[in-house]
Amino acid sequence: MAPEVKVTQAPKTPEPVKERHADELFKEFKEVSITEFFRKNKAHLGYSGKVRSLTTIVHELVTNSLDACEEAGILPDIYVELKQLGEEHYRFTARDNGPGIPLKHIPDVFGKMLAGTKFHRNVQLRGQQGIGVSGVTLFSQMTTGQPIIVRTCTGDNKINEVKLLLDVMKNKADIVESTTFEQAWKGTEVVGEVKDVQFNLSDKGPFEYIRRTAIVNPHLKITFLDPEGRKTVFDRVSDTIPKPPKEMKRHPKGMDTDDMLKMAKTSVARHVGSFLMTSFSRVSNAKVAEIQKLVSCDLKKNPRKLTWAEAEELVKAVEKMDFMAPSTEGLSPIGENQIRKAIINVLKPEFETVVTRNPTTYSGGTPFQVEVAVAYGGEAGRKIDEEIRAEIMRFANRAPLLFDPGDCALTKAVQSVDWKRYGFRDFDNSPLTIFVNLVSMYVPYTSAGKQSVADLEEVTREVRFALMETGRKFQRYHSKKKRDIEREARLNTLIKYATELAPAIAKITKTDEKKLLKELDELIRRKLKYEIEAEDEAEAEAEEAPLEEGFTEEEGQ
Amino acid sequence: MAPEVKVTQAPKTPEPVKERHADELFKEFKEVSITEFFRKNKAHLGYSGKVRSLTTIVHELVTNSLDACEEAGILPDIYVELKQLGEEHYRFTARDNGPGIPLKHIPDVFGKMLAGTKFHRNVQLRGQQGIGVSGVTLFSQMTTGQPIIVRTCTGDNKINEVKLLLDVMKNKADIVESTTFEQAWKGTEVVGEVKDVQFNLSDKGPFEYIRRTAIVNPHLKITFLDPEGRKTVFDRVSDTIPKPPKEMKRHPKGMDTDDMLKMAKTSVARHVGSFLMTSFSRVSNAKVAEIQKLVSCDLKKNPRKLTWAEAEELVKAVEKMDFMAPSTEGLSPIGENQIRKAIINVLKPEFETVVTRNPTTYSGGTPFQVEVAVAYGGEAGRKIDEEIRAEIMRFANRAPLLFDPGDCALTKAVQSVDWKRYGFRDFDNSPLTIFVNLVSMYVPYTSAGKQSVADLEEVTREVRFALMETGRKFQRYHSKKKRDIEREARLNTLIKYATELAPAIAKITKTDEKKLLKELDELIRRKLKYEIEAEDEAEAEAEEAPLEEGFTEEEGQ
Repeated sequence: MAPEVKVTQAPKTPEPVKERHADELFKEFKEVSITEFFRKNKAHLGYSGKVRSLTTIVHELVTNSLDACEEAGILPDIYVELKQLGEEHYRFTARDNGPGIPLKHIPDVFGKMLAGTKFHRNVQLRGQQGIGVSGVTLFSQMTTGQPIIVRTCTGDNKINEVKLLLDVMKNKADIVESTTFEQAWKGTEVVGEVKDVQFNLSDKGPFEYIRRTAIVNPHLKITFLDPEGRKTVFDRVSDTIPKPPKEMKRHPKGMDTDDMLKMAKTSVARHVGSFLMTSFSRVSNAKVAEIQKLVSCDLKKNPRKLTWAEAEELVKAVEKMDFMAPSTEGLSPIGENQIRKAIINVLKPEFETVVTRNPTTYSGGTPFQVEVAVAYGGEAGRKIDEEIRAEIMRFANRAPLLFDPGDCALTKAVQSVDWKRYGFRDFDNSPLTIFVNLVSMYVPYTSAGKQSVADLEEVTREVRFALMETGRKFQRYHSKKKRDIEREARLNTLIKYATELAPAIAKITKTDEKKLLKELDELIRRKLKYEIEAEDEAEAEAEEAPLEEGFTEEEGQ
Repeated sequence: MAPEVKVTQAPKTPEPVKERHADELFKEFKEVSITEFFRKNKAHLGYSGKVRSLTTIVHELVTNSLDACEEAGILPDIYVELKQLGEEHYRFTARDNGPGIPLKHIPDVFGKMLAGTKFHRNVQLRGQQGIGVSGVTLFSQMTTGQPIIVRTCTGDNKINEVKLLLDVMKNKADIVESTTFEQAWKGTEVVGEVKDVQFNLSDKGPFEYIRRTAIVNPHLKITFLDPEGRKTVFDRVSDTIPKPPKEMKRHPKGMDTDDMLKMAKTSVARHVGSFLMTSFSRVSNAKVAEIQKLVSCDLKKNPRKLTWAEAEELVKAVEKMDFMAPSTEGLSPIGENQIRKAIINVLKPEFETVVTRNPTTYSGGTPFQVEVAVAYGGEAGRKIDEEIRAEIMRFANRAPLLFDPGDCALTKAVQSVDWKRYGFRDFDNSPLTIFVNLVSMYVPYTSAGKQSVADLEEVTREVRFALMETGRKFQRYHSKKKRDIEREARLNTLIKYATELAPAIAKITKTDEKKLLKELDELIRRKLKYEIEAEDEAEAEAEEAPLEEGFTEEEGQ
């Protein structure tokens, strides 16, 4: 296992290289701003490739509008327009009917990275880092030198219009112009120019992004005017305002020591015990007593004085114990009915099934939940050169993930399932759409561009289990379909024989041939009916067997 | 193309959701430090998964040591040790014989993100962002609460030992202890503890990382003591110190307007013309005159007064012109001989070929160069369950990329080649190692974890062209091998017939049978030799045809 690379050649005469001293090397030591960092590494934010860059802009503006509307309890109505101004040169407009942005926060929302309302809160939103929208300002400015224009009103009939650039060195907004005018409107509109981008209708383009957003946000009305003048209205399918995302206490399971300690240090509780009860969900007096039995430190201790070793003990104790699962309250899944409706509406499949797993947590104590669906036949799958291929639609908190599928945990989970077992003989070439939505307070993306989910064991497992359940459902459908076809064939064969034999039997038994035929027909159909009922009963019994069994036998672990 | 999603259900009675005002929503508006950002998003830095996290630590420390030694003109001798302290709990040690770190810079190198010597310079190094090593401090501290220990000496016989943590809120080092002692040594040693990680010998583990680093750094001696006590020494294959990476002027091609303007604003040149000549490589007086003919602004203008529109004109003019390719001076490829030696040494292939493309630039005016190699047979390929699979080894500036292959431009380039054309009937199951090294002043990674290269057209194209050339070489080898086998068969057949006929001919012609047989044998061999020479000549002529032809015909574009 440990090959040793040996010197196999005579060393050449080394060229004289002058050795340099550390002081000389460190002359250039500098600190840069986060904005300079992302200016240089714009691919981290999703700005790589002409189509992707344009989709990224749409993605950032639409998710921000959706988050704002949902937090404010408003049914979102969003308008997106892309207008071509020249070669690879576009103007983008995104307008919502959201709560608006207070004047004093406009510069930081659009012109400062790592600033926002979402970072510190344990709440399910699409945005989480306070980078994306400032990234739009940065990329517009990098490619056109133009400021973005923000028009917003919080409902006081005063529209604030601010033109701003981003001061890259200082990571703050550089306000070009700021005016206020009176008008009765509430919401936010962002207008900007961008170059080095390209619009198209591919499955990586803005249209597909908006289409998928509409699919998983049934309460959203979104209008898209594309550069070729086509206007598409994705109307809402539901008038129910989703419950606004709720900030939740963390669940004690899966905490890491560093977080535990950080929370303890800033707690105002008098005892470690009350700190645990007030800072976490599902921790009762009884649970604190149970923890006390497992740790050496006194839980009456001041939480600000907790040591690393004590915090680690707490974390380990909690891991050994059972707690109620995290509340579903803070998580906002799309819901089985809504997913089914959307799938039927868009894909018109021959078969569809939706599976929602119970919420659970991954390391870091973060609750998450997985929703998956499988659609088969109809318009499911993706057409490539007139051939149908299986398609995976990934979402995180209802935001479509169009890019970087290769290393995404959601893709890997789909690929890890042995689809053959469930009757998919040639998975890749099946008319199949697999739909995965990861719902979480915090989605562990691999990059600031937020298109790929990091490979966390717990997430992969949940997605996999959910998909296996859809697989079993498909299998039942599939074998029932096969059985129906077989029954039909059996029935036809029996009736054919009966018809052929009837004259002979009639002669022998001297009965009326027509009457005999009718009786035989009834007899055959009755017999088959009993058989079907017996089969279905057996099937139903099989279904009642605990699902998890299947996991541990062959595919489990 | 534009389906309209229609309301298909009667709206439910909406639950009463209270609308919230913007002021309430923005109460939580906060700014966070870059360190807090990466603390929350540690997957961006490569800290996801137990094995990957440990490999990431080794990667960050080894690349930093290699960069330091190369910049200082020192033949690197690096020692890495991983010692298991408990379950998923390790101590890491990385020691080099580099230039050392001046005392005053230690806190920022190890305890501040976005600080370093590499960010602003157009120079080829493995590190570029000033994040990685502070990331090691952060992850150690997050999992164990322990500081890292840095011992370093710049050659003045004073070893500075600093224990430090990272102040996450302030993004600066929190120095726990700092001592100095006398000892004759030069270099840097970093020791730390980490939990939630796992050592193994998989192709994603620290051993494989170090092995691949050794393969592409023939001047490196690296010793690895693994947690199971195995000590592996990868000795250097070359005593040539690579020329230290040189800071280069940017090439005018592929600049973007924003960069052009930024450079002009900070230039001290008196005219735009002299700014172009002093700030860029390959811009002569004659080239400035040529640019002047293509732009409306006067190149005698003060560069600090350049407008966006004028800078854009300059960029566009340059794109229309021809310039000498960027100098190879600033790029430090491994070199064909070194790659060949390494491949023969490690893989003992039946066939190998190395192709180095000429340096070129990608958008952003950044020079880059591509080195690829193909090894076939011998120990090439990767063994999975006793079956051999084709393997892709990706490198960027000689640093192995072990993770996130799925969406990496280097992987995609390999997959885009039609290998069947070159005689690989079943590419995936061939005993094949494909080796790709991207050499650049700046590698466009998709994430701060630096394991995947963004999909830039120019990079993909260069890798693809280089691979197609290796493909053609393999094809020639492959068809020559086939031809050799056929010739051998022909020779054997002819000699067999001659031997059978010899007695009869000897009788008829009354010659000595033995002599006749000898003459026939010689005749046959001579004839075949002429045939071989003629074939080889035709082959040689075919080889002289310009290579690029192949690209434009079928696979080009």
